[in-house]
Amino acid sequence: MAQNNPTACLIIIGNEILSGRTQDTNLNFIAKQLVNIGVVFQEVRVIPDVEGTIIGTVNELRNKYDYVFTTGGIGPTHDDITTLSVTKAFGLQLVRSPEVVEKLRHYYEGSNRELNEARLKMADFPEGAEFLDNPISTAPGFKIGNVFVMAGIPNVMQAMFGSVKTYLKHGRKILSAEVGAYVGESAIAAPLTALQEKYPDVEMGSYPFVRGEKFGTIIVMRSIDNERLHSAQKEVYKLLQENGEIIQ
Amino acid sequence: MAQNNPTACLIIIGNEILSGRTQDTNLNFIAKQLVNIGVVFQEVRVIPDVEGTIIGTVNELRNKYDYVFTTGGIGPTHDDITTLSVTKAFGLQLVRSPEVVEKLRHYYEGSNRELNEARLKMADFPEGAEFLDNPISTAPGFKIGNVFVMAGIPNVMQAMFGSVKTYLKHGRKILSAEVGAYVGESAIAAPLTALQEKYPDVEMGSYPFVRGEKFGTIIVMRSIDNERLHSAQKEVYKLLQENGEIIQ
Repeated sequence: MAQNNPTACLIIIGNEILSGRTQDTNLNFIAKQLVNIGVVFQEVRVIPDVEGTIIGTVNELRNKYDYVFTTGGIGPTHDDITTLSVTKAFGLQLVRSPEVVEKLRHYYEGSNRELNEARLKMADFPEGAEFLDNPISTAPGFKIGNVFVMAGIPNVMQAMFGSVKTYLKHGRKILSAEVGAYVGESAIAAPLTALQEKYPDVEMGSYPFVRGEKFGTIIVMRSIDNERLHSAQKEVYKLLQENGEIIQ
Repeated sequence: MAQNNPTACLIIIGNEILSGRTQDTNLNFIAKQLVNIGVVFQEVRVIPDVEGTIIGTVNELRNKYDYVFTTGGIGPTHDDITTLSVTKAFGLQLVRSPEVVEKLRHYYEGSNRELNEARLKMADFPEGAEFLDNPISTAPGFKIGNVFVMAGIPNVMQAMFGSVKTYLKHGRKILSAEVGAYVGESAIAAPLTALQEKYPDVEMGSYPFVRGEKFGTIIVMRSIDNERLHSAQKEVYKLLQENGEIIQ
């Protein structure tokens, strides 16, 4: 659909997601951001806070995609092992950034809290890393090579993603259109297949739903070609209209 | 923490998740179910509706974990390619089940809809598959080898998971306890590390949060040993109490 667009994947690092304690929302946020700038989101992995697993996953995926994002595990406690693991994945040394130490010192001076060793750990980065600003709680994320390491807390991650975007090449924007109707998807499956074959450059997804007693289907079309997208949308609209009540 | 417990992973198959159109909730549901029966949830992958990717991912993960769950892509439309892809991953043939055809015939007889070829596609399974009941919309999921193939629609997936559970060996249940306090996690990071070292059989996670102007931390402890869990919980409680206001 968009073969020359940059590609990306996300590694969600966190036992709390795999234990069911926390419902992840970072995936959905990042997905929406990438669609807008034409970066194709190809894969997500959710893995535990285990050093060997983080190192292996980062090294596999940074060779496979243009951009790798990670969320989670960059705080001050013993279970925050993402920074060290990513540093090891790149075969680098961890170094303390005087610039970030200064920022943290300034941040903690404003409170009655001391800049202890645990907090100073958040000033350690792989040598050569660039920082991803954290306007919420100061300790930055970082970029090393094509890997962007962000916090797991959604509002902090979203703030850091502002810095991430300044590094990303934009592809052709992936446009989308939807048509929905109260018709079971199996009723229109055959003519929809014919339309998908007619429009190979418009990816068509069929999503059934139930609202009360009523069955319905939403057809989502995605393409980088606006004209083809709208031409396909007209034909899908006609197909659904012939088979059920259109959802306005 | 629970080395002899069975292991599992989930493959979420769906362009709609990667495009940001749909927020997945199946991961969280499955995670909570697995915790209750002592199955260790090790990994999740989110991948697009691409045959080669599905085949490769299924074959990699079914050799790595005791159980592989998949969600999405088993409906009647052209973009539902999970069943065929999993069949190919196992090197099997797709066969139409007379038993499921009969169920679908009975289901559609009750409506004014015909059992067309698209609907019959939902009666095709890899040879030797066992069915996962679908009390919501009839067309079942299936089990082949150690792979359990379920629908993507949350209420249908949840209904199918009832059948899935009858196949799973239970491990020692993973118990959990939490203590929270209004204290920044970096203030207690060092003594918490010492507690984690004292209780290697109790996994401790530290989750910071902000509520209005107040910083807080929740420590989550997980173990298969109830006595050790509660002993650790007492010590964590004491640590947090000494450093901030406990959240009741």
